[in-house]
Amino acid sequence: MTQAAFRTLAYEPGRLTLLDQTRLPREETYVDLTHLEEVARAIETMVVRGAPAIGIAAAYGIAVAAREGLDLAEADRRLRRTRPTAVNLFWALDRMQRRWHAGADTAALEAEGHAIYAEEVEASRKMGEHGAALIPDGATVLTHCNAGALATAELGTALAVIRAAHAQGKHIKVVADETRPVLQGARLTAWELMRDGIDVTLIADGAVAHLASRGEITCAVTGADRIAANGDAANKIGTHGVACILNAYGRPFYVAAPWSTVDERLASGADIEIEERSADEVTTVFGVRVAPEGVKVRNPAFDVTPAKWIHRIITERGAVPPGELISGG
Amino acid sequence: MTQAAFRTLAYEPGRLTLLDQTRLPREETYVDLTHLEEVARAIETMVVRGAPAIGIAAAYGIAVAAREGLDLAEADRRLRRTRPTAVNLFWALDRMQRRWHAGADTAALEAEGHAIYAEEVEASRKMGEHGAALIPDGATVLTHCNAGALATAELGTALAVIRAAHAQGKHIKVVADETRPVLQGARLTAWELMRDGIDVTLIADGAVAHLASRGEITCAVTGADRIAANGDAANKIGTHGVACILNAYGRPFYVAAPWSTVDERLASGADIEIEERSADEVTTVFGVRVAPEGVKVRNPAFDVTPAKWIHRIITERGAVPPGELISGG
Repeated sequence: MTQAAFRTLAYEPGRLTLLDQTRLPREETYVDLTHLEEVARAIETMVVRGAPAIGIAAAYGIAVAAREGLDLAEADRRLRRTRPTAVNLFWALDRMQRRWHAGADTAALEAEGHAIYAEEVEASRKMGEHGAALIPDGATVLTHCNAGALATAELGTALAVIRAAHAQGKHIKVVADETRPVLQGARLTAWELMRDGIDVTLIADGAVAHLASRGEITCAVTGADRIAANGDAANKIGTHGVACILNAYGRPFYVAAPWSTVDERLASGADIEIEERSADEVTTVFGVRVAPEGVKVRNPAFDVTPAKWIHRIITERGAVPPGELISGG
Repeated sequence: MTQAAFRTLAYEPGRLTLLDQTRLPREETYVDLTHLEEVARAIETMVVRGAPAIGIAAAYGIAVAAREGLDLAEADRRLRRTRPTAVNLFWALDRMQRRWHAGADTAALEAEGHAIYAEEVEASRKMGEHGAALIPDGATVLTHCNAGALATAELGTALAVIRAAHAQGKHIKVVADETRPVLQGARLTAWELMRDGIDVTLIADGAVAHLASRGEITCAVTGADRIAANGDAANKIGTHGVACILNAYGRPFYVAAPWSTVDERLASGADIEIEERSADEVTTVFGVRVAPEGVKVRNPAFDVTPAKWIHRIITERGAVPPGELISGG
């Protein structure tokens, strides 16, 4: 399988290096973080984003805090306050917490961070295998936001599926919607797929229904930030509308995410907390104002796609209808 | 009914003055056009936009050409090449053509332009009356793109409905989606409604389904650029998806347009030509690059909402289900 020629996150003792995703695609810049507070702010400001990548960064954040000699309970609380929707953040911090509650030393915490990283890479590889079987040769695959190598350790979730289908020699094309307000589709997905030599076409978010109605979309695959037990899936704002449109035109909509994204405690998506981010994300683009001063804004960062519109949820355990996620998992 | 405190278009003999909509909301600048070619370019570059306003501008363009002493058949052909989707352009030019074919002099052509302008204002007023009856007190009304005073002579189409409901004392709130790629919702609708003191909240296009799924949208009303005999309606890209989502959540979706937007010769929307605009609209925002250099782009400027998702088409003749548009017109 092709690997993207960049590193989303890398950890060496006491130092977490992140590709600064706020500067893509204009600059490929890496930032070295040696303090817990820097890691927390990098997650908040989306220097690193994508549910699996947030989880890995938070795990390494605990390792950084341990190297700094900080109180790990405080470090844990600080990281939990960064972003509320992606469950991977809490999953990774829970896992680290079990280690430091059990008396693990700094090196052992670093090893746990590396283990999480490695397991997520393996999960991506398996999602690719399971998901690629759903993508027919000649397909045009729509994706929303960035569920690629930039959202994970490597390979991605939705884009792992696309990469695997491409690596199998299937002739597939990708349509990436730009994903306002933060433009992850335009800035990250297009950049990442162009680097891998995968055919990608960028569209405005509003163009999805036009292409779907003309039969120009074969299926859609996106990532997820939290999946409830019934299969309802929180993901980047706009995913819900894409699923609605694909369903109306009889095209399958797939969600790809590692098992760490499944929140088995939640019966449905109704209780998922939806992060509301700054109005500036909507009213400005790279600092350029695009709306009147003083306008009221709603900026929910995520939405919850109902399970009824999801054809398969693709995890490292297989590709199953939402209703079989827990029983069949 | 409240009138917005700006002029979208104004004509004095030999001079068409346009509010330059490409500079809103950052600058309120007016441009004086005294040559046919300037009028044609202003339409192409969206200095003036919105189906009814394009029609009026084109009519005055013929008047400008007459003042210049140009060949009117050539002027007519030049204007017809500016933008293919809005039928109002062709409707207005047909109407002017009938006058100059019949030997009308420059003053008579100017009078015809003024007549078109005045009729469109009256149509807006009547659309407001017919449409306001559909908007309940306390409603939150979604609108897409700009179908306001900036898209017409005065008052608007969709926004004429909102203005009329507001003027009747109904407590209504408007949700304006930003409408990428050209951001007419953010730049124009928000600006125009804030000026009128109507409660408006801006959202990213992708947030429509989230709000609709939570019962936070009562109904939607948009304009149209061309309506086929069966009620299929071409409008700004993204309208089709909004209608799909509103329909999925059982909320009414209304289209407001003057009768000049109805193209009775077209049986359905399948034959409406969809303008494809420059990739730059998607890859840059006010000149700031937001996507990788060299990325492929699809940028359809319009889509066609199927009549089955439109609850009522509101014209100056009344508000009717799409199936009764022609018979009931």
